Amino acid sequence: MVGGGPGSFIGPVHRMAAELDGRIRLVAGSFSRDLDRSRQAAAGYGVAEDRVYADVEAMIAGEAGRPDGIELVAVVTPNHLHFPVSKAALEAGLHVMSDKPAALSLDEALALKAVAYAAPGHYGLTYTYTGYPMVREARDLIASGRLGAVRKVVVEYSQGWLAQPIEQGGDKQASWRADPAQAGLGGCIADIGVHAFNIAEFVSGQRVARICPDLSRVVPGRTLDDDCNILLRFENGAPGVLVASQIATGDRNGLRLRVYGERGGLDWSHENPSVLVVNWLDQPTQVLHAAAGYLSASARASSRIPTGHPEGFIEAFANLYRDMADAILDGAAGSVPSIDEGVRGMTFVTRAVEAAGAGWVNLEGAPQ
Amino acid sequence: MVGGGPGSFIGPVHRMAAELDGRIRLVAGSFSRDLDRSRQAAAGYGVAEDRVYADVEAMIAGEAGRPDGIELVAVVTPNHLHFPVSKAALEAGLHVMSDKPAALSLDEALALKAVAYAAPGHYGLTYTYTGYPMVREARDLIASGRLGAVRKVVVEYSQGWLAQPIEQGGDKQASWRADPAQAGLGGCIADIGVHAFNIAEFVSGQRVARICPDLSRVVPGRTLDDDCNILLRFENGAPGVLVASQIATGDRNGLRLRVYGERGGLDWSHENPSVLVVNWLDQPTQVLHAAAGYLSASARASSRIPTGHPEGFIEAFANLYRDMADAILDGAAGSVPSIDEGVRGMTFVTRAVEAAGAGWVNLEGAPQ
Amino acid sequence: MVGGGPGSFIGPVHRMAAELDGRIRLVAGSFSRDLDRSRQAAAGYGVAEDRVYADVEAMIAGEAGRPDGIELVAVVTPNHLHFPVSKAALEAGLHVMSDKPAALSLDEALALKAVAYAAPGHYGLTYTYTGYPMVREARDLIASGRLGAVRKVVVEYSQGWLAQPIEQGGDKQASWRADPAQAGLGGCIADIGVHAFNIAEFVSGQRVARICPDLSRVVPGRTLDDDCNILLRFENGAPGVLVASQIATGDRNGLRLRVYGERGGLDWSHENPSVLVVNWLDQPTQVLHAAAGYLSASARASSRIPTGHPEGFIEAFANLYRDMADAILDGAAGSVPSIDEGVRGMTFVTRAVEAAGAGWVNLEGAPQ
Amino acid sequence: MVGGGPGSFIGPVHRMAAELDGRIRLVAGSFSRDLDRSRQAAAGYGVAEDRVYADVEAMIAGEAGRPDGIELVAVVTPNHLHFPVSKAALEAGLHVMSDKPAALSLDEALALKAVAYAAPGHYGLTYTYTGYPMVREARDLIASGRLGAVRKVVVEYSQGWLAQPIEQGGDKQASWRADPAQAGLGGCIADIGVHAFNIAEFVSGQRVARICPDLSRVVPGRTLDDDCNILLRFENGAPGVLVASQIATGDRNGLRLRVYGERGGLDWSHENPSVLVVNWLDQPTQVLHAAAGYLSASARASSRIPTGHPEGFIEAFANLYRDMADAILDGAAGSVPSIDEGVRGMTFVTRAVEAAGAGWVNLEGAPQ
Repeated sequence: MVGGGPGSFIGPVHRMAAELDGRIRLVAGSFSRDLDRSRQAAAGYGVAEDRVYADVEAMIAGEAGRPDGIELVAVVTPNHLHFPVSKAALEAGLHVMSDKPAALSLDEALALKAVAYAAPGHYGLTYTYTGYPMVREARDLIASGRLGAVRKVVVEYSQGWLAQPIEQGGDKQASWRADPAQAGLGGCIADIGVHAFNIAEFVSGQRVARICPDLSRVVPGRTLDDDCNILLRFENGAPGVLVASQIATGDRNGLRLRVYGERGGLDWSHENPSVLVVNWLDQPTQVLHAAAGYLSASARASSRIPTGHPEGFIEAFANLYRDMADAILDGAAGSVPSIDEGVRGMTFVTRAVEAAGAGWVNLEGAPQ
Repeated sequence: MVGGGPGSFIGPVHRMAAELDGRIRLVAGSFSRDLDRSRQAAAGYGVAEDRVYADVEAMIAGEAGRPDGIELVAVVTPNHLHFPVSKAALEAGLHVMSDKPAALSLDEALALKAVAYAAPGHYGLTYTYTGYPMVREARDLIASGRLGAVRKVVVEYSQGWLAQPIEQGGDKQASWRADPAQAGLGGCIADIGVHAFNIAEFVSGQRVARICPDLSRVVPGRTLDDDCNILLRFENGAPGVLVASQIATGDRNGLRLRVYGERGGLDWSHENPSVLVVNWLDQPTQVLHAAAGYLSASARASSRIPTGHPEGFIEAFANLYRDMADAILDGAAGSVPSIDEGVRGMTFVTRAVEAAGAGWVNLEGAPQ
Repeated sequence: MVGGGPGSFIGPVHRMAAELDGRIRLVAGSFSRDLDRSRQAAAGYGVAEDRVYADVEAMIAGEAGRPDGIELVAVVTPNHLHFPVSKAALEAGLHVMSDKPAALSLDEALALKAVAYAAPGHYGLTYTYTGYPMVREARDLIASGRLGAVRKVVVEYSQGWLAQPIEQGGDKQASWRADPAQAGLGGCIADIGVHAFNIAEFVSGQRVARICPDLSRVVPGRTLDDDCNILLRFENGAPGVLVASQIATGDRNGLRLRVYGERGGLDWSHENPSVLVVNWLDQPTQVLHAAAGYLSASARASSRIPTGHPEGFIEAFANLYRDMADAILDGAAGSVPSIDEGVRGMTFVTRAVEAAGAGWVNLEGAPQ
Repeated sequence: MVGGGPGSFIGPVHRMAAELDGRIRLVAGSFSRDLDRSRQAAAGYGVAEDRVYADVEAMIAGEAGRPDGIELVAVVTPNHLHFPVSKAALEAGLHVMSDKPAALSLDEALALKAVAYAAPGHYGLTYTYTGYPMVREARDLIASGRLGAVRKVVVEYSQGWLAQPIEQGGDKQASWRADPAQAGLGGCIADIGVHAFNIAEFVSGQRVARICPDLSRVVPGRTLDDDCNILLRFENGAPGVLVASQIATGDRNGLRLRVYGERGGLDWSHENPSVLVVNWLDQPTQVLHAAAGYLSASARASSRIPTGHPEGFIEAFANLYRDMADAILDGAAGSVPSIDEGVRGMTFVTRAVEAAGAGWVNLEGAPQ
């Protein structure tokens, strides 16, 4: 693991998720730029002291000499290091599981794509929400055609934890996200908007063609957006809306996706992730439950315990790692989000920031 | 009552709502342009045959001669008749309670405003959702300043009943709404989008300054929009989003409003209208219940029965009629939505249709 | 109307419910034993002064002489007057709609049954909750056999408004309910437990054969029970549970019914009365919505407005009055709860109070 | 680990839960009485072949000789082996984490208590639901006195997976539970009723003094109960109800607890375990969210990730293992459910089965 030092939220999540199914172990790392802090983290992770490294290069070199050397690198740093760390690991022949975004800029993401395509290892990106069983059921339901052609998509991701300028008070999580040097050109849109964008395309099976973004810096003193609202048009002409915010005071982690087809509409919400609601044209609403026998095979396989026993964020995250393990160990055709989704996400963020407040813009190709 | 003939949804609602509190009685009407049908409706309403009229003019003339003649006219026709009927009634010195929109066009609405301001009677517009106790509580909560300054507004109104072209199959409710001659220049936006717009301004206490609208005709063969998604900016700079649809397959009548302030955010949803959820920055979420003792005076006064006993659409509608009765009979300072809100709504619809897909436009004044 | 004087909760509900569909008007009454208060109530109800009477006998006599005399009497008094008022009205050839319970004791209820069977008029009892569309849908669903044989019933009715001894502070609603002379031998069980009992039998189509009751006086100083928990056995052997309380602090009016059959289970809750949840053995959960086209005919006919527009307690109450009007005016085979249900309810209350804490007892017939 | 062979639900849960926080590793086991199957399970668990044992005695002996020998034994067998395996492990000086029930009978449980008290190791029992953050918050809230004295407890645990006689079709999970030799004298009551009993006492801080049980064998052909409904009286006189079922068709894993105090009532439900609802006498309902800053210290410490990120059954289970690790490694005063709770649970099951249908019985001491 690179990153995930003391105080990190996502480092421990990567460890728990990676190890949950017993096929992956965290055995080495460079958890912090400060070696003392790195060692402190290692102790918490149960990593031996002699496998704590100063940086990714040292880790690659040190592990290369071991019979039990690492095979997979988890990239858990602030955004600006995603690219160099992933690149180094891939070029060393290792597999990579990177936190999103894939890179700090679209150019970097494209460069990483070239590296990833050329490298022998697998590259995966933790668009966590695609790991939820009922998100996969939603995707499969749309793909099955049972809801008919997709007509409208509404996706929202509302948080309130940045409703106050806590980055000015030294909050570690908030500070790097508010700093363009570490976070890149997007604030809310790059941190969570891109998750919403990703599951909208993932579930609907439709690509967004054009966007009309409105980005705001609601809390005074911010350089990057903390709220974004974006009109969408999909390639098939369907309209859509993406609403994301980190100043939605009191909201926790309100990711919700609705996709409407000709015959029905589906509704998934992260705060109760084990159910998927399907509203039909002329029939009773259906509520599908995780781990139930009537789900698609991929949704069923994404639950570890019987229906009625809640699973959550860690298990969804672990599903991505399980897919990665399947790809590495069994050669399974990977369903882990790839560098293509990484480039896609950076395209979205970049175009949205460029066009903020200025009307409609094509997501790819020439401006319309 | 003018309109509300056989098969009407809203005519019986007006009667039930008007009569619920025992201060208003439906005693005369011109329920249909077809006198036979009008008489048929009268029988259902319990209106005497001799008080069924061919048109509004006949009704005004006929009732004027009676000692127990009508005082208040409910305008329940398709949209294109709202203006002439309201005008005739106001000019005859009667009070008017009109279905929304106030008129077929902004010009008509402005003309009606002049009439209403000059007339001795009261004019009210049935923006029904402002009659709900918990919508009033929401407004009062914002006005109290307890949530701090308004920072973001998300309002949505999703229906699915026009997901298929039922107007082509002769559905009466769908047919006039799909016909510009009867409905005006807006489809979904004029039918329900304007309700969403109205409660967003009503609750937030903020006026929308600029909009960036995207209107669609999703079901082939339609002249008017059946889906609309609109970015908003309020006068205080706060961003907002308005999402409305009549092709949201499977949705019923999903009006939902969220208003975020500096210290908390509120969330009201029409499908469970007796609760108001308030999420706070650092405290447990609160769920407020209709008719509870801790509500604002105006919210409490808007419930007829004890907390835990659901009230619904008819009762909310009746609250508007009660306010009207209070204004007429007691001279109470009216809180019924007025012609000003009617003009405001037509301004919104008109600007949105004009600017659809073309980026940002000022709601009033010179283009920016 | 008899009863329903100033401060009454249920009097105005009866008026609104009776008049909602336009076939019944409140035109006369004896609203209070105090004639001044009775006149004050009359003004609120829009009843003419010359039709305000000192008592039910005076009302019967006075109205009998009028061409527009009353046909139906609403009995809205405290419990101890239900019997004499109903009896007088029925014996005068009038129809009666009585608040529950039918009488103060089982003996009285049986006497009233004899009167009702002999009288020309209809007798109806306001077991309000049977008026809800989705309760009727639930009954029809069980009756259809789609869920298979009934295997278990869980019904609960939780209120918290008597969590404090407010009857000692003079609360009018609480005072008569706490007084055996006015309320009868049961407190919570007679006030709300009997509603739970009634809809359990109404929906399940099964009669309770045996009960094992536990009644408590949780708040010190009470003579009558304020909490009751009862094990049930139905005639087909199915187990059941009835939980009722008026000291469930913080609860509002939480009536909930679950009936489990061989193939599925249904779940209805009063705080969100427009939906009925059906959980199936091997299929997705279904959520049925009031006024939807797929409901049973009787459920559909019990809604006045389109799906997605909430109706509530007043409308459910009005459905009972509508059934009564259909019976009186159209000779429709009545579905209003009858004196038989009244006797049944008093049997339940009586047996439960007698056997409280003492184990199992048969509901009818010889003790087992 | 002893038990948890191929097809086991709870074996993998124990492994995931034990390892989640990185302080415990599954390194040895006797997963099945069939050594081949045991080896097959070991492969899935990542356990080395040379640490797979024929039985618990072999495991104890084999591990005792290793420098890295086991310290803690997870007992994951059918019920009838809980006692001998736990006893053997404790007597060998090992720590034990046992699935519930502690033993097959009350006598065995008492014998195990003697062993546990005498042994140097810790003994823990996986009353899983006490591991949920919001169950701990509920306990702390009651203990704080903020809700006042406890007045009523309603606890229910509804499953539907045994609505059909799947044990006759060879379902492994159902088969041993239906067999008294493996399951003991209780069916539903011992499998899930005892969980409900446990959290009722855990949260309320009150002990049940008397019970009035009704147990049923609803599905024909069963020897043990598959449905149980029990009236409760707590030592402070408060009434209560326990409803449990495995034939509640369509229900998944519906554990729900309500505790009412003088000033408020709390409501926790397993299907949405990250919230705790508190209804107050005169104030808005509160909804508390897991991991929020306003929770009690023990509730906060029971979440691993930020508020709004759902955690579930595995994490709750892991909290018990974390408490065990804290006790073993840090000498922390253990909060893991102990053999005392095990004896208590067996007392409840035994008395309930003995007194089923026969009225009230004391839970301890002489019959009343």
